[in-house]
Amino acid sequence: MANPSRQAVNFAAPRGFATAFKADCKETFFPDDPFHEMKHEKPLNKLKKTIQYFIPLFEWLPNYNLRLFRYDLLAGITITSLAIPQGISYAKLASIPPIYGLYSSFIPPFVYSIFGSSKHLAVGTVAACSLLLSETVGAKASPQDDPTLYLHLIFTATFFTGIFQTALGFLRLGILVDFLSHSTITGFMGGTAIIICLQQLKGMFGLIHFTTHTDVVSVVGAVFRHRNEWRWESAVVGIIFLAFLQFTRYLRQKRPKLFWVSAIAPMVVVVVGCLFAFFAHAEKHGIQIVGELKKGLNPPSIQYLNFDPQYLPVTVRAGLITGLIAMAEGIAIGRSFAIMKSEQTDGNKEMIAFGFMNIIGSFTSCYLTTGPFSKTAVNFNAGCRTAMSNVVMGFCMMLTLLFLAPLFRYTPLVALSAIIMSAMLGLINYDEMIHLFKVDKFDFVICMAAFLGVSFISMDVGLMLSVGLALLRALLYVARPAACKLGKIPNSSLYRDTEQYPGSTPIQGVLVLQLGSPIYFANSTYIRERVLRYIKEEQGVSDSKTDIIEHLLLDLSGVSSIDMTGIETFLELRRILDSKGIKLSIVNPRIEVLEKMTLAKFTDAIGKESFYLSIEDAVQNCRFSLHSSKTTMEEA
Amino acid sequence: MANPSRQAVNFAAPRGFATAFKADCKETFFPDDPFHEMKHEKPLNKLKKTIQYFIPLFEWLPNYNLRLFRYDLLAGITITSLAIPQGISYAKLASIPPIYGLYSSFIPPFVYSIFGSSKHLAVGTVAACSLLLSETVGAKASPQDDPTLYLHLIFTATFFTGIFQTALGFLRLGILVDFLSHSTITGFMGGTAIIICLQQLKGMFGLIHFTTHTDVVSVVGAVFRHRNEWRWESAVVGIIFLAFLQFTRYLRQKRPKLFWVSAIAPMVVVVVGCLFAFFAHAEKHGIQIVGELKKGLNPPSIQYLNFDPQYLPVTVRAGLITGLIAMAEGIAIGRSFAIMKSEQTDGNKEMIAFGFMNIIGSFTSCYLTTGPFSKTAVNFNAGCRTAMSNVVMGFCMMLTLLFLAPLFRYTPLVALSAIIMSAMLGLINYDEMIHLFKVDKFDFVICMAAFLGVSFISMDVGLMLSVGLALLRALLYVARPAACKLGKIPNSSLYRDTEQYPGSTPIQGVLVLQLGSPIYFANSTYIRERVLRYIKEEQGVSDSKTDIIEHLLLDLSGVSSIDMTGIETFLELRRILDSKGIKLSIVNPRIEVLEKMTLAKFTDAIGKESFYLSIEDAVQNCRFSLHSSKTTMEEA
Repeated sequence: MANPSRQAVNFAAPRGFATAFKADCKETFFPDDPFHEMKHEKPLNKLKKTIQYFIPLFEWLPNYNLRLFRYDLLAGITITSLAIPQGISYAKLASIPPIYGLYSSFIPPFVYSIFGSSKHLAVGTVAACSLLLSETVGAKASPQDDPTLYLHLIFTATFFTGIFQTALGFLRLGILVDFLSHSTITGFMGGTAIIICLQQLKGMFGLIHFTTHTDVVSVVGAVFRHRNEWRWESAVVGIIFLAFLQFTRYLRQKRPKLFWVSAIAPMVVVVVGCLFAFFAHAEKHGIQIVGELKKGLNPPSIQYLNFDPQYLPVTVRAGLITGLIAMAEGIAIGRSFAIMKSEQTDGNKEMIAFGFMNIIGSFTSCYLTTGPFSKTAVNFNAGCRTAMSNVVMGFCMMLTLLFLAPLFRYTPLVALSAIIMSAMLGLINYDEMIHLFKVDKFDFVICMAAFLGVSFISMDVGLMLSVGLALLRALLYVARPAACKLGKIPNSSLYRDTEQYPGSTPIQGVLVLQLGSPIYFANSTYIRERVLRYIKEEQGVSDSKTDIIEHLLLDLSGVSSIDMTGIETFLELRRILDSKGIKLSIVNPRIEVLEKMTLAKFTDAIGKESFYLSIEDAVQNCRFSLHSSKTTMEEA
Repeated sequence: MANPSRQAVNFAAPRGFATAFKADCKETFFPDDPFHEMKHEKPLNKLKKTIQYFIPLFEWLPNYNLRLFRYDLLAGITITSLAIPQGISYAKLASIPPIYGLYSSFIPPFVYSIFGSSKHLAVGTVAACSLLLSETVGAKASPQDDPTLYLHLIFTATFFTGIFQTALGFLRLGILVDFLSHSTITGFMGGTAIIICLQQLKGMFGLIHFTTHTDVVSVVGAVFRHRNEWRWESAVVGIIFLAFLQFTRYLRQKRPKLFWVSAIAPMVVVVVGCLFAFFAHAEKHGIQIVGELKKGLNPPSIQYLNFDPQYLPVTVRAGLITGLIAMAEGIAIGRSFAIMKSEQTDGNKEMIAFGFMNIIGSFTSCYLTTGPFSKTAVNFNAGCRTAMSNVVMGFCMMLTLLFLAPLFRYTPLVALSAIIMSAMLGLINYDEMIHLFKVDKFDFVICMAAFLGVSFISMDVGLMLSVGLALLRALLYVARPAACKLGKIPNSSLYRDTEQYPGSTPIQGVLVLQLGSPIYFANSTYIRERVLRYIKEEQGVSDSKTDIIEHLLLDLSGVSSIDMTGIETFLELRRILDSKGIKLSIVNPRIEVLEKMTLAKFTDAIGKESFYLSIEDAVQNCRFSLHSSKTTMEEA
């Protein structure tokens, strides 16, 4: 009966468990195959390449020259001018003394330049994580009532962030970052920007009393409850600064060449603010200033790490969440700039670099640092060539700490608020949200969950809500895989979805179904029901004899794996089909699927002759054995 | 350049959101399309069919006749003889007075016969859920110190089980049961059987003091700690009973026709035990008996439901977990017997029936009931035809409660222990575990997590551990979808995995990759890395000019859906490829994928001419535009 000339399915012996397991592990943890290039090298070269792999500094430093340094020097100075105001501002956001913001831009850049794999990333503190730290740790220790304990807990949380990031990097668990989808990040960034902007109303209006909550309702409520504290002088100065900063941003959009205007604008605001405050005695007119900033480099802080079991849950939790977010931001940003230059960054290596940065940072009075978007963009635009720009920034920061820090004591808080607001307004990505709404409603819901959750509940709840929804969607994808009925496209040997290609015609007596995605416990019941429903629908259309289905072909080209429950479902399906007089055939099973089927003796159960390499082959064969074949042939 | 005769991809306008959403919802919640048959009916018939759909009783009762009743009567009497000893035994396992086990076999069968859709399922209490209830509720209220409160909490938990099951059924969330994989259930059943058997050592050795924990270590420890209480008389009687029961099981396996011997064996054990205890005054020789059983039907218990906030967490939790397990067992069992007879059961309908059973049960002094495996198997073998056999069992139970209950007061506890042990020994499925180990190591790990977790920690922890692992695997499946490189199989237009079919040959200058599973946030980074790695590997093989890849064809036949992050990854990929001088083409995108690509303007970005319906078409077209085409042609 069988057509002897047909292409055969390859029933090679299944791979051993060890082989398959090794291959799976490699795909899971080393998808970028980092050691590929080293395979064919000599031992000494191999060692050199391995060291270069783990410490990227050795990769670029030997080829470094003065020409490259010129670019990096310029970029480094530019980002320093951004780092000083941002450092002070974000430290205020984290409710710690502003000097720690400057400390955090001194040590970590050096660490990153040794271990980091991105050429464009500029190290610094970030607004979202600063606020999140203050929100989480602040719930356990008040930054007003016990500032020392609070500061120590912030260091401890930073330490845990570092440990967590390093561990993930070494365990090659970059996969975790993959679960923060683009939609989640868009929503989270937007929501964070909104609440951070609202937080700045405190500085803008010169309020003294405020709320410790971050959600929109509490903050707006607090602003209006303390109407009597509003100072118009402060607001006027703030609005002028904000307008100036927004104008420089607008300028950058119109004339990308003038990016440096917007890059140094925050520094200009700080300097002008300082001068204004100093000469106009602004303090007496209700414009608060930063206050004392001590000269000198980072004092050690390793002795302050606080592992008291009472505070451990909150520091660990803060460390994990901020670590994950900081990592997602840093990796995503490093990656997007690398893509512009057609280079690749290694997520796992970046994680290790961030981890070291934060561990060493927590020992030296720094708090959480990563690769913030604004600084990195400026670094890129300023023409940085290697991580040396971070070293330059570190040196500039050292000089600032040693000599200039006290000068910044006159910085008006309202200037810092204007700087933060301006930075945050750029992070609300309306266009992307509208795009999401148009293209994928579920993605839009995931985005909105993060956006509204962060705005109205709290940052971590919003994030978890959104990630939870995204995971639910991932599980629904696998629980309800798309299946479709195939028909033959006239004048070809192609079989395509009859719904998508209305011109394709079904084959008499043969039902061809295409299954997609892995088949396993979560979807096997569904698949069985769906297949039986297709058969019911087919036979329901008409009761004429020729329409009786005698063969069911399952095209498994798209099925990448199967588990025990899946195989048992196929066996069950076959029993049901047998009782209906329908013969089951399998078309083009992939290697993993065929291996499992062979091991589970499914191939023996339905017979190797029921496996086909292509739908055309299978259909040709089925035609021979059709009861109604005579009619078909006459018609043909 | 393009070949005009080729089959075109259908770029029809994307379906509206409402259409796509409706289709998705239908696939998610109504995969069995229950109202399909009603579509073309007249209104009156439609109403009739709808009522029949929701109350299956009306479907089979009108056609019921005396011939069918003869079968059901026999089956009903047989399962009653099993229900009495099992009811008493499992009530002991749940630490409630034995009479409640008998009550639980009186009302629920009537409810099930009205709403249940399975013909073979026999209603009753189950060992695993009984023990789980006792473990969970017992942690909050001691069954020894405050038996009344404990009993009321058990009713309350049963009530919540019912509410939960009914709600899931109405919400069509049968999908939840799908997440309990075959491997999880095998492991859970095995582990439960072990700990229940060990619990019976208390009855076997006639111990008075025991532990409230269920894990292996605590129980074995308790048995040996109370060595001084061991009674050899009890152990001898127990071993004789157990041997008899195991012998009847063995007989059933050898001679399936003699199934009734093993079906009535527990009843025989109880009757013989009673007579022996009565005449030998067993109580005086250290063989404990059940004790007083009151005559009379179920008293109402609705007034005892306890919604005290203090106990609410524990009753709700017990209700949810036991409800899920009971449901999984009941649905799986109903389904497997239906398959033997080529019938179908409806999981959602079954859930509603179980839910009603437990809600009404909790009002009438019953505790958790479902469709236990042992009873259902006996019912099936005894030749039941409809749910009428449950009605018969209900009536027999009523007669027992009204007249015979006091006779069972002499039942020795050791007889009950032997009955439970014998039932449990059959539930440890060694063969299946070995099979899992051979075919799928990950499934084996999931199974062992449940088995060891239940045995050594506790039932709910074991279950959650196993489900968690299974979900992790599901997420790994989607995070690391299999991709493969395709080559042309000689003398055909087929393109298959070059690893699986070593005979297939790659096409010069063209790299064909097949992607599987949905593409979205969790795997898009991986897919990009993987594709780039394939290109790197290809170009690394040799540096000769002819081996340069000029075209990348992505076969998306197996990709069932895509999200925004996925589409952005493709755009990114295209940018990277552009910079390498490689042209990206898409082959056979499925309808959902093409819709999203059109909406996101991806099709416009890469051009409609880069979409092909088949690999062969695409390869033909690429050949025309190859820089090295001349060489290729000369070779051909």
